[in-house]
Amino acid sequence: MMKSLPLAKVYQLIEPGPVVLLTTARRGRPNVMTPNVMTMSWHMMVEFEPPQLACIVSSANYSFAALKSTGECVIAIPAASLAPEVVKVGNRSGRDVDKFAAFGLTPVPSKRVKPPLVAECFANLECKVIDTRLVNSYNLFVLEVVQAWIDPRRKNPKTIHHHGYGRFAVDGRMVTLKSRMR
Amino acid sequence: MMKSLPLAKVYQLIEPGPVVLLTTARRGRPNVMTPNVMTMSWHMMVEFEPPQLACIVSSANYSFAALKSTGECVIAIPAASLAPEVVKVGNRSGRDVDKFAAFGLTPVPSKRVKPPLVAECFANLECKVIDTRLVNSYNLFVLEVVQAWIDPRRKNPKTIHHHGYGRFAVDGRMVTLKSRMR
Repeated sequence: MMKSLPLAKVYQLIEPGPVVLLTTARRGRPNVMTPNVMTMSWHMMVEFEPPQLACIVSSANYSFAALKSTGECVIAIPAASLAPEVVKVGNRSGRDVDKFAAFGLTPVPSKRVKPPLVAECFANLECKVIDTRLVNSYNLFVLEVVQAWIDPRRKNPKTIHHHGYGRFAVDGRMVTLKSRMR
Repeated sequence: MMKSLPLAKVYQLIEPGPVVLLTTARRGRPNVMTPNVMTMSWHMMVEFEPPQLACIVSSANYSFAALKSTGECVIAIPAASLAPEVVKVGNRSGRDVDKFAAFGLTPVPSKRVKPPLVAECFANLECKVIDTRLVNSYNLFVLEVVQAWIDPRRKNPKTIHHHGYGRFAVDGRMVTLKSRMR
């Protein structure tokens, strides 16, 4: 279902600033990893290749402890059609509910990290935390993408961009200009 | 022309991930500050209020030395109609050309920092560098917005989002969903 995406192309997914989902896994009962998922808009690229990015995961989020202790996450990119589920994920905490089950999202085993992919997302990035120096001051994690997946059946998916309080801009027309920028 | 924007609303401009311009100022002849402008897509919010954000300015960019030495910049947000100029700014270096003059952009004095606002942009954020711990490793600067401006004549401006090699998605329709997210 998911096809491996060359790591050099990862930036083309993150650079446009889509709302994403972030999955983590925390150890529950012995040898049982419990996945969680949150909604995130505060992220950016840091380096093209190997693809590195930064994100803010608030210490108020249930995902914070899992990300900090395991050093692993998956960034999953939803298309606009998944916006209702994305908002529901953002409205609830993994402290109270299994958000995968509650909102019809399907966790799929990753290849290189414990947190799951999200089957309903058109792209999934398996990430490892590589720098925590700014975690205490700003909840800022630097991540490296170690494996990327794309759903080849989804052509030109439109992403969503949060403008605050549940208002999202959906990608509209594409324009191409002669550019020397990568 | 530009109206002061409450700092608490700054995140609604940056969170959606628009391509932005970044201006800096470097000292040329005694007491003469020379402005420069670059195109940037690698940025994210870090904190709501005071608004803090992070960005990557490559040490290969002419702006890097000015940002590092002065600790000041302006982030100016262009609407889609300015895309041709945004790409031209991205294609050239301030080493070789005065990009304001060459591409018809108008520098306007800022209130709290030396780098100028860009008159043609619908929003301008005056920023000071507050953390340089990740500059050496990742060219990552943490900024605080100390003054924000919005052009009240521009209603619902559409921004652009870079997908690589000069391809941009223009904001399309807006959707609003019942959200507890700020």
